[in-house]
Amino acid sequence: MAKLTFDFNNATAGMVGDHGFTEEEIAKANDMLAGAHRAVNGRQMGFRLLPNGQEDILQDIIDTGASIRSAYDNFVVLGIGGSALGPISVGHALSYGRHGINFFVEDNVDPERLTRLFDTIDIGRTMFNVITKSGKTSETMAQLMCVADRLQKKGLALREHIVATTDEKNGNLIRIAKEEHLKTFVIPAGVGGRFSELCPVGLLPAAVCGLDIRAMLAGAAYMDAVCGREENNPAALYALLHVLGISKGINISVMMPYADSLKYMADWYAQLWAESLGKRFDRDGREVNTGQTPVGALGVTDQHSQIQLYTEGPYDKIITFLKVGSFRCDLDIPAAFPYVEDIAYLGGKTFGALLEAERSATEYALLRAGRPNITITMDDVSEYTVGALLHFFEMATAYAGEMLGIDAFDQPGVEEGKLATFALMGKSGFEEKKAEMDAQTPKKSEWIIE
Amino acid sequence: MAKLTFDFNNATAGMVGDHGFTEEEIAKANDMLAGAHRAVNGRQMGFRLLPNGQEDILQDIIDTGASIRSAYDNFVVLGIGGSALGPISVGHALSYGRHGINFFVEDNVDPERLTRLFDTIDIGRTMFNVITKSGKTSETMAQLMCVADRLQKKGLALREHIVATTDEKNGNLIRIAKEEHLKTFVIPAGVGGRFSELCPVGLLPAAVCGLDIRAMLAGAAYMDAVCGREENNPAALYALLHVLGISKGINISVMMPYADSLKYMADWYAQLWAESLGKRFDRDGREVNTGQTPVGALGVTDQHSQIQLYTEGPYDKIITFLKVGSFRCDLDIPAAFPYVEDIAYLGGKTFGALLEAERSATEYALLRAGRPNITITMDDVSEYTVGALLHFFEMATAYAGEMLGIDAFDQPGVEEGKLATFALMGKSGFEEKKAEMDAQTPKKSEWIIE
Repeated sequence: MAKLTFDFNNATAGMVGDHGFTEEEIAKANDMLAGAHRAVNGRQMGFRLLPNGQEDILQDIIDTGASIRSAYDNFVVLGIGGSALGPISVGHALSYGRHGINFFVEDNVDPERLTRLFDTIDIGRTMFNVITKSGKTSETMAQLMCVADRLQKKGLALREHIVATTDEKNGNLIRIAKEEHLKTFVIPAGVGGRFSELCPVGLLPAAVCGLDIRAMLAGAAYMDAVCGREENNPAALYALLHVLGISKGINISVMMPYADSLKYMADWYAQLWAESLGKRFDRDGREVNTGQTPVGALGVTDQHSQIQLYTEGPYDKIITFLKVGSFRCDLDIPAAFPYVEDIAYLGGKTFGALLEAERSATEYALLRAGRPNITITMDDVSEYTVGALLHFFEMATAYAGEMLGIDAFDQPGVEEGKLATFALMGKSGFEEKKAEMDAQTPKKSEWIIE
Repeated sequence: MAKLTFDFNNATAGMVGDHGFTEEEIAKANDMLAGAHRAVNGRQMGFRLLPNGQEDILQDIIDTGASIRSAYDNFVVLGIGGSALGPISVGHALSYGRHGINFFVEDNVDPERLTRLFDTIDIGRTMFNVITKSGKTSETMAQLMCVADRLQKKGLALREHIVATTDEKNGNLIRIAKEEHLKTFVIPAGVGGRFSELCPVGLLPAAVCGLDIRAMLAGAAYMDAVCGREENNPAALYALLHVLGISKGINISVMMPYADSLKYMADWYAQLWAESLGKRFDRDGREVNTGQTPVGALGVTDQHSQIQLYTEGPYDKIITFLKVGSFRCDLDIPAAFPYVEDIAYLGGKTFGALLEAERSATEYALLRAGRPNITITMDDVSEYTVGALLHFFEMATAYAGEMLGIDAFDQPGVEEGKLATFALMGKSGFEEKKAEMDAQTPKKSEWIIE
C-alpha cells in the first residue's frame, strides 16, 4: 500500500547546525511530548472519529455524488474557509486524468467573480452544495440567497439544484433545508470547519468528482494509527519541532509542495495551522499571543521567488517539503538545439527528474545555509495518500495545541470582525456596535497620502 | 484620472496603540528617510526608466500583440519567477470582461501540469513566448526544448510559434533566437526579473491579452512622480514603516487584496519583497540576515483562515489592505427566504457592499486588537491603476533596500541551489559540486519515520 514517509534529519543540529534542534533539546521536551500524547489520545476529538465512524452515511454520499455527476454539468460549492479549502485542495490534488462534471468552489463574495460564474454556468444544469454549519456565515448565506432567487425566477425547484451540508438541528440553513425539502448532509457535532474535510463537507464534493472516498478514509485511518503511537510518532514530532521552534524565534512554518497538484494543500494547511494555534490566551487564561504563521510556497516555481529569503534572511522559519515519489505521468526533455552545449545536460532527462533534482538541490541549499527543514514523501498522489496527509496535519495540529497549552479547536478572534460586519450591514441588534465604531478616533488627513 | 490613495493612520500608535509607530519614532527616522530618498533618486535604477523610456519599442509590442491575438487561439508564456508573476498578476487583474485568446503562464516543470497543457492546446494554433534573460534558467529552457521538439515533429516552423524575450546580446536564448530567426524582444540591461513587468517581459503578454499598455505605463509614470517626492512620499513611508517594523520584531508583511482580481498581485509582491530584501550581507559586508517574509491573503476569503492568527497571535505582522473603490460590476443580494429573519439584513444590499463592509470590519477588528495596518485604495482596477500599483511597490522596495543598507537588486542566495541542480542533473563542469554533495553527512534512519 502506498505510504507516507517523514524525514526529520535536516531539522536536527547534527545536520543543519546551530539553528537546528539538538538531541538534548528534544530529549528534554519528552514530558511535553508525553503529556500531549496523553491529552490527544485521552480527549474526545471529533475529527478522529471520521476515518472509521461514518459507515452509515458513506453509501448515501457515494450514491448522491454519482447521481449528481451523471445528471448535471456543473457542481458549485458555496462555502468559505473550512467549507472551501478542503474541497479545493482535494479536488485539485486528484483532478489529474479525471473528466466529467465541472467543479467550482465559490469562496468569496467578489461581485466580478460571481458575475463571471453566472456567465459561465447554465444554472439549470447546475447543482449547488451550500456548506455552513451555523447557517450564519454571511458570505455563504448571501450566495445562497442569490442562487435561490435565480433558480426561482427560472421556475426551477430549489430541491433539484441545492444540497445542504450543515448542522443537524440548529441554524438558518437547516431551517431552510427543511422548509425547501433540500437533500441534506450533517456536519457532525464536535467537528470544526478546518477539521471537516473528511466528513460530508469534503466527502460529497469528492464523490461528485468521482473520487474514491472510502480510500480517502482508509488513508486517514492508516495515519490515525501511525499518529496515535507512543513512540516514533511523526505527527507528535512534527508538532514538537514547530513548538520548540516558536520559543527560538521560528514564528513561520513554510509548506512547500513539489507538485502542482498539491499547491492548494498549502492553503488548506495555512488555515489549519493559523486558526488552530494563533491564540491570545492559553487554557489557564494567561495572555500568551502565541501561534506560528503558515506560508505556502510551490516548488520549483517559488524557488525563483522565496528561496533567496529562505537561505539568506532571518532564521525565523522551519520548512516542510512535500515530495511525491511517483507522478501519474512523466514527460521527456528532448535533446533540442544541439548547437547550444550549455543546455545539453537537460536533453534525455525527464521533467519529473528535473523537478526532483531541484527539490533535492533546494533541500541541500537550505541545509548549507543552516535552515531547518523536513521532508514528507508521499509515494503517490492518490485518494489514500491525500486522506493520510490531511489526517497527519490534523493530528500534528492537535499535538501542537496541547504542547502550547491552548485550545486548538476554537476561534474567538474572528468574533470582533463578524460583529463589526453585522453592524456595518445594518443587522438589527447591532446598533450598539455601530455606535462604538462611529465613536472611533477619527483618522488624520496627514496620514492619508494621494 | 483614477488614482491611488495611501492611508497610514492605523499604523500609528495614536490609532493602534503600543504596537503601532509613534510620531517620535517616525520623526527620529528622518535621516534614514532622507538618505534613502537621496540614494533612490540619485542612483541609476533600471526599472525607473521604464515608464517613460520605451517609446521606440511600444508600437512594435502593440502590433505584435495584436497580430498574435488575431492569428492564434492560445498564448503560452514559458517563464518562471520574475518572468511569470508579473504576466500572471496583470493578466488576472485585467481579465474581467475580456475575451479572445486563451492565456497560459507555464511556470513550473511539473510533468502532470505540462501534460495537461499539451492535452488542452492545439500546438499549431499556439504562440509561445519564452522569457529568460540569461537563457540559463533550466526550467524555461527545458520547456522550450520540449516545445521546439513538438513543433518540429509536426513540421511547424519555430519562428511562427515562438517569440523570445531575453538579453540583447548574451546567453543561450538570444543565440537560439538568432539561429532560428525568432521574433525577439529585449530585456533592458539593469532591469532584473522581479522589476521587469513594465518592460517587454510583461508588456507583450499584456498586449496579446488586449490590454492598453500605454495606460499601464502612464499609471507607472504618475506613480514615479508621486514616489519621487521629497515630502509626502507614500513609497518611502511604506518602506519606513516596514523597516522600522523589522527592528521591532515585525518580520512578516501581509498583503491582503479585497478583490479576486488582485489575488495574484500578492504573489508578485511576495517575490519582490522577499527576494529584494532577504539578504545575508549589507552593503558594507556585515552579516545581517535581514528581510521580511511576505504573506498573501485574500479578502474576504482568508478572514476565515488567517484573521484569528492576525488578531490574537504574536505581534509580528504589518498588514496592507488593497481596497478597490469601484468594481467593474456589482450584483444584488435579493431578499430570499423571508421566513428566516436572521439573514434579512443581507437582502437589498449588494455583494460589493458586503465585501467592503467586511474589509472595513476587519480593519476595525485589527485596530481593536492593536495590529498595525495600512490601506491602499485603488479607485478602480484598470491598466492605469495596476501600472501605478506595480511601480509603487517597486519604489517602496528600492527605498526599503536603502534603509536596510542592502542591495535590493541582487539574489546571491539562489546560486547554491542552481549549482546543486546542475550537479544532480549531470551538467559537465559540476562534478566537484556533485562530489561535495555526495560527501554530506549521511541521514540517520532514526530520524526517518514511516
